[in-house]
Amino acid sequence: MKVGILGASGYTGLELVRILLRHPEFELAVVTSEQQAGRPLAEAYPSLRRRTDLRFEAMAPEALSGRVELAFTALPHAASAPAVHALREAGLPVVDLSADFRLRDLATYESWYGRHAAPAHLGEAVYGLPELHRDALRKAKLAAAPGCYPTSALLPLAPLLRVNLCERSGIHIDSKSGVSGAGRKPEVGYLFAELDGDVHAYNAGFAHRHAPEIEQEASRAAGAPVRVTFVPHLLPTVRGIATSVFVRPRSGARAADARAALSDAYASELFVRVLPEGELPSLRSVRGSNFCDVALVEDARNDTWILLSTLDNLGKGASGQAVQCANLMCGFAEEAGLLDAPWVP
Amino acid sequence: MKVGILGASGYTGLELVRILLRHPEFELAVVTSEQQAGRPLAEAYPSLRRRTDLRFEAMAPEALSGRVELAFTALPHAASAPAVHALREAGLPVVDLSADFRLRDLATYESWYGRHAAPAHLGEAVYGLPELHRDALRKAKLAAAPGCYPTSALLPLAPLLRVNLCERSGIHIDSKSGVSGAGRKPEVGYLFAELDGDVHAYNAGFAHRHAPEIEQEASRAAGAPVRVTFVPHLLPTVRGIATSVFVRPRSGARAADARAALSDAYASELFVRVLPEGELPSLRSVRGSNFCDVALVEDARNDTWILLSTLDNLGKGASGQAVQCANLMCGFAEEAGLLDAPWVP
Amino acid sequence: MKVGILGASGYTGLELVRILLRHPEFELAVVTSEQQAGRPLAEAYPSLRRRTDLRFEAMAPEALSGRVELAFTALPHAASAPAVHALREAGLPVVDLSADFRLRDLATYESWYGRHAAPAHLGEAVYGLPELHRDALRKAKLAAAPGCYPTSALLPLAPLLRVNLCERSGIHIDSKSGVSGAGRKPEVGYLFAELDGDVHAYNAGFAHRHAPEIEQEASRAAGAPVRVTFVPHLLPTVRGIATSVFVRPRSGARAADARAALSDAYASELFVRVLPEGELPSLRSVRGSNFCDVALVEDARNDTWILLSTLDNLGKGASGQAVQCANLMCGFAEEAGLLDAPWVP
Amino acid sequence: MKVGILGASGYTGLELVRILLRHPEFELAVVTSEQQAGRPLAEAYPSLRRRTDLRFEAMAPEALSGRVELAFTALPHAASAPAVHALREAGLPVVDLSADFRLRDLATYESWYGRHAAPAHLGEAVYGLPELHRDALRKAKLAAAPGCYPTSALLPLAPLLRVNLCERSGIHIDSKSGVSGAGRKPEVGYLFAELDGDVHAYNAGFAHRHAPEIEQEASRAAGAPVRVTFVPHLLPTVRGIATSVFVRPRSGARAADARAALSDAYASELFVRVLPEGELPSLRSVRGSNFCDVALVEDARNDTWILLSTLDNLGKGASGQAVQCANLMCGFAEEAGLLDAPWVP
Repeated sequence: MKVGILGASGYTGLELVRILLRHPEFELAVVTSEQQAGRPLAEAYPSLRRRTDLRFEAMAPEALSGRVELAFTALPHAASAPAVHALREAGLPVVDLSADFRLRDLATYESWYGRHAAPAHLGEAVYGLPELHRDALRKAKLAAAPGCYPTSALLPLAPLLRVNLCERSGIHIDSKSGVSGAGRKPEVGYLFAELDGDVHAYNAGFAHRHAPEIEQEASRAAGAPVRVTFVPHLLPTVRGIATSVFVRPRSGARAADARAALSDAYASELFVRVLPEGELPSLRSVRGSNFCDVALVEDARNDTWILLSTLDNLGKGASGQAVQCANLMCGFAEEAGLLDAPWVP
Repeated sequence: MKVGILGASGYTGLELVRILLRHPEFELAVVTSEQQAGRPLAEAYPSLRRRTDLRFEAMAPEALSGRVELAFTALPHAASAPAVHALREAGLPVVDLSADFRLRDLATYESWYGRHAAPAHLGEAVYGLPELHRDALRKAKLAAAPGCYPTSALLPLAPLLRVNLCERSGIHIDSKSGVSGAGRKPEVGYLFAELDGDVHAYNAGFAHRHAPEIEQEASRAAGAPVRVTFVPHLLPTVRGIATSVFVRPRSGARAADARAALSDAYASELFVRVLPEGELPSLRSVRGSNFCDVALVEDARNDTWILLSTLDNLGKGASGQAVQCANLMCGFAEEAGLLDAPWVP
Repeated sequence: MKVGILGASGYTGLELVRILLRHPEFELAVVTSEQQAGRPLAEAYPSLRRRTDLRFEAMAPEALSGRVELAFTALPHAASAPAVHALREAGLPVVDLSADFRLRDLATYESWYGRHAAPAHLGEAVYGLPELHRDALRKAKLAAAPGCYPTSALLPLAPLLRVNLCERSGIHIDSKSGVSGAGRKPEVGYLFAELDGDVHAYNAGFAHRHAPEIEQEASRAAGAPVRVTFVPHLLPTVRGIATSVFVRPRSGARAADARAALSDAYASELFVRVLPEGELPSLRSVRGSNFCDVALVEDARNDTWILLSTLDNLGKGASGQAVQCANLMCGFAEEAGLLDAPWVP
Repeated sequence: MKVGILGASGYTGLELVRILLRHPEFELAVVTSEQQAGRPLAEAYPSLRRRTDLRFEAMAPEALSGRVELAFTALPHAASAPAVHALREAGLPVVDLSADFRLRDLATYESWYGRHAAPAHLGEAVYGLPELHRDALRKAKLAAAPGCYPTSALLPLAPLLRVNLCERSGIHIDSKSGVSGAGRKPEVGYLFAELDGDVHAYNAGFAHRHAPEIEQEASRAAGAPVRVTFVPHLLPTVRGIATSVFVRPRSGARAADARAALSDAYASELFVRVLPEGELPSLRSVRGSNFCDVALVEDARNDTWILLSTLDNLGKGASGQAVQCANLMCGFAEEAGLLDAPWVP
C-alpha cells in the first residue's frame, strides 16, 4: 500500500522514512517538504544514499490522493490542521503527528496553541495510543499520534487510574528528554556547545503543552478529573525519554495490586514491557525501537509509588507509534515494520 | 597553612588537589594513596604536569601530624572511620568526605553501611553544610562533608521546612547525577559504551544511602520527622546534579512566602544563588564551581511547589564544600579558593 | 538455516544477535558464553526482551555441529583459534571475528599476538572483506572477518594501489574510533568519566595490531610491499570509525584517475558509497549500518591526495561484515539482513 | 590595569571574561556587544551571576580610550579590522582575536577573507604566539592572536623546521576540534542532535582559512616555503583540539635529534609540555587551561615522524593565549591569570 509523508524534512519525518523503508506492507511513495522541494532525500540525509531515490516534493495535500492510500503528516502544529483537512476532504486516512488533533476540547487547544484551523475534524480524531484506544483506531480515519512525554507518562499511569488504585491529584511527573524532541530548529539553545554536559528543566509546573494532553487522557482512563504537575528536562542525548511518576496509593491499595494492574494491562501487549520487580528501565534499552519499558517501585514509608518508564521519543514517542496506528487503521499486523531490536550499544 | 589529603587518587581527591593548588591560604603538602604510592601526581593525572611536583605517599594517618595542620580524608566509607580516628588522636582537625560521620545515629549508620569503626567520634562531627551549620563548623574539629545528592535536596528544602511552609511527608525527590559521582571504579556499568546516550534510575524509593542523610537533615531543619521518597538517576555527563523536589504547601501557605523564605535564607550566602522567578537552574551554569542554583515553581492547580536545584557533585557536592568547611574551621574567608567562574562553555 | 555464535556476550556478539534476529535466511539457534551460561540474553541485555528467548549456553565448540549449520566466533584472539579448529574439525563453516586468522604469515601473527593455537587452518582462511575477496569467500569454509580499522583504510586505499596510482610508501593513516571498538572491558581507561570530552591517540606509529593487517592487504592489492604509518585515536562516541589516508600520487597520476578508480571499484557495490566530489563522509551517516562512505580530496599544491572514510566499527567493521561473509558463503543474497538505513538522528 | 573586550557575547569573549575575572593584574572594566547591549553579563550567562555585575554596552571602539588601557577584540573577521583601527587611532594597545591581522600578506588575506578594511595596521601587528615571537610581543601595540588550529600545528612543528630536521613539503596535518571552535552560531549543522555521536572532516586539503596561516608561520620558522595539507574535523566535544602532524625526516635526521629540538625549544616554556617518550597527549589533560601538550612518535620503517599535540581551542587556542600576549605587552608575569589546573575529570 502506497503511503506519503507531508513535511518529511524534520526528525520525526526522517524517522518515519527510516521505518517505512523496511515496512513489509507500506511503500513510501511521496515525501513533501516546502523548503527542500526537488532535492533527493539522500542529499538532505546522506545516510539514506542507496536506500531511497525519492525526492522531496512541494505539493498541495489534496494532490496526494491519487498517489497514496494513506498520509502521515509531520508538520508543525497549526500548519498541520489545514493539511489534514485537505487530506480528509480528499478521502485519505491520515495519521497526524502534530498536536492539532490530540486535545478533544477546542477551548483547551486554543488556550495552548492559538486558533484551530480545522476544528470540524476534532470529532473524528482518535488519540493514537493503541494500548489505550485500539478498537477506535482500527476504525479511525484520523489518528492523532500522541506527544512523546504523554506516551511516557500515560502508559504506566493509565492502568492504575483505570482501576482506581492511586489518588487522582498530587501526581508529580518528572521527565527527561533527548534533544531530538525539540526538532531540527537552528536555535542557540539547542547547539551542541550549549547542551553537552548540561541538563536543565524548562516549562515546569503546568506550563508545557504536553501537560493538558496528559491530564486529558489520564482523566479519561480514570473516568474523573486527574491533576498532574509536570516538569520536563532537556538531556544531553539525542533520543529517549525517561519519566518518573510519583503517585499516592488510594487508601488500602497495595503495591502488589498496582503491579498486577500493570501486568494485566500489558501482558499481551508487545511494545510495553513491564519489568520484573527489582529492574528499572533505561533509555538505551529502548533506543531506536517502539518499546516502552515500565517499572513500579514502592516507598511504603512515605505512602508513595514511583512509576518509571522509558521510550524513544522518535519511536514509541512519535514515528514508531504513528506507524503502529497506521498498521491498525489498515488492518495489518500491528507490529509490522516495528520489530527491530533496540540500538545497543 | 599546610594541609594533606588521605586517599587522593579518586575524583574527589583530584578535585581537592585542583582547588587547593590555587588556594590563597592552604598549601597542599601531602597526598596519600596506597595504590599509587611513590608515583608523582602528574604521572597519574597528566593534567597536573607543571602544576605540582607532589608524589603520592603511603602513610599511616597519624604520621601526617608533623607535616600538616589539617587533613582531608577522601577514602571510601568504612575505610575512613579508622583513619579519622587516628588523625583526631594525633590532634589534627579533619574534613572527612566519606559517609562515616554524616549520620548522627549509630544504628542508622550501621543499617546502611555496616559496622562503624570509630563511633566515638560521631559526637564531635559536624554536618558540613555551611549554610545550615556555619556556627558549629567554625568551632568544629571534625566536619563530615555531606553527600552530593543531600546537598542538592537540602539547600532548597531546608528554608521551607524551617518555617513550616510545606508538608513534612509526601516529599518526592527526583535527582539526576553525572557519572563522576560513582567514583573511578572499573565496572562495566560505568563504561562510556554503556552510559553514553543512556539515562536510568537506580536505588529508587528509599534505597540509596543518601536518603537517610536527607531525612536526618531535613528533620533537623523542620524540628520534626520528615519523610522523603528519593529517585536518583545516572546521567551521560561527567559532573553535576540536577534535583527536583516536589512538596505540598501547608494549608494557607503561599508561593510568595516560600520564595521569600528562600531569598531570606540565601540573601547573604555567596554560594547559593536563588534565581529570579521565571529562570530555572542548569547543570552547566554551576559546573566546576562551588555554586548551587535554586528555583521555586508553583503549580497551584495541583497544590504543589517544585524546588529545582543544580550543583557540581565534585564542587559544592563534595570537594568545594569540603574546602568551604575547612576555610570556616581555620578562620579564613569562607570563599577562599572557591571563587572561579563556572566552566561555560 | 540455523546458526550459532560462540562468545556472544561482548559488543560484537550482541551486534551479531541484533542483525541475525531480523535476518531473512539465518535463524539464530545457539549463543554461547562461559560467564553468562544459563542466563537469558534478555536478562543480560534488557534491550532484547520480547525479541528473543534464547539463553547463553556453556558449550564445547564441537557440540554445535548437530545444532547449527554455520558458526560465528566472537571470542578474544588466542581463545578463538582452538574453537575454530574444533568447529572446522566438526565440519562447520565458520566466520571468525577474532584476529586469529587474518594474518596469513604465521611469524607475523606470532610477533603481534603470541603463539598461534591452530596454524594449520591459516591456509584455508579467507580474509573476509567481500569487496576485495568475494570469489574466494563464496567458496570459503573459514572467513576471517577483518578488523574495523583495516576495513576503513583498505576500502578507499585498495583501488588506488591496485592500479598503481599512488606511492606505496609514505602512506599516513589517521583513524578515530568509537569506544565500543575496545570491547566491554571494565578498565578505568574506558570509563565514561575518563572519556567524555576526551580524544587521544594510542599505539601510534606502527604499534597497533591492525597495522600489519593493513599492510598485508594493501600489499596484496598493490602486488608489492606497501608501508603505512598508523595513528589510531579513541573518540567520545560509542560507534564509528573515521579514517584519513594521506597518499602521494605516482608521478603523472591525476586526481580524476583516482576518482575514477574508486568509482569503478565500487559502482556495483551496495555497501561502499563513493561520495560525489565536494561531499565528505560522516560517522552519523553510517551508524548502525553496513555502509562504508568514501571520498577523495586533492591537494595538488602539496602533491597529496586525502582519502576519507567512515564506517560503523560494529557494522561494516565487524558484525555486519561477518554476516555479509556468511551470506556469500551460504549463497544467500549478499545484502540479506543488512539493508537497514543508518541511525540518524 | 583596566581592560575591555569588544564583542564579548561569543565563546571566546566569554572565556576572556572568565579568565580576566581572576586575573591578578587586569581589571575587566568594559564589555561590549551590539546585540546584548544593556543586558547584564550574568543574565546572558547565568554562570556569571555573583561573579560580575558588568553589563554589555553598545559602544564605539574609540570611546573605550578613556575607560581602559588595553582592549581585546573578539569580533568576527572583517568586523574586527575597523574596530582595531579605531582603537589604535585612539592610542590603545590591542589584542585582536580575529583573523584580520594574522596574515602578513594583504593579497593572501584578501583571497581568503575578502577586502581588508585596515591594511595599514598589518605592519605593526605581531603574530601572537609567544613561544615563537615573545620579544616582538613585549614591544607590540597590536597582537594578532593565532587561530586554534595553527597553534596546535605550529607548536610541535616549528622547532623541527627551525633546525631543518624535517622535509618542508609533504607535511600532512589531521586535526580534530571541539564544537566551540565554530562559535555560537545558530546553524543546523552545529545542533546537538546533529553532532552527538558524529565526527566528520570539513574543508579538507587546503580549503580551511587556517591553512595559509599555518604555512605562513611554518615558513617563517623554516626560513623557506613550507607546504602543508590540512584536514580539520569536528568532534562531539565542546572544547579541545587534537592534531597529528606527519612529517618526513630530512635525510640522516634521527628521532633523537627531533626530540631534543622539541625539548630544547620548550624546556623553559611553562605552557608547552613535551611529554616523555611513550606518553601521548589527550584533550582532557589540557581542557580549560593554557597548556599545549606535545609528543613525537617515530615510524622508522616508513620514514615518518608523527607529531601529536592537544590544546584547548578556547584556552591556548584563543583567549588564554590572548591574555598571555597581553601579559607580555604590559610587562606582567607571562603566566598571570593562566595557572589553573586543567579540568579533569
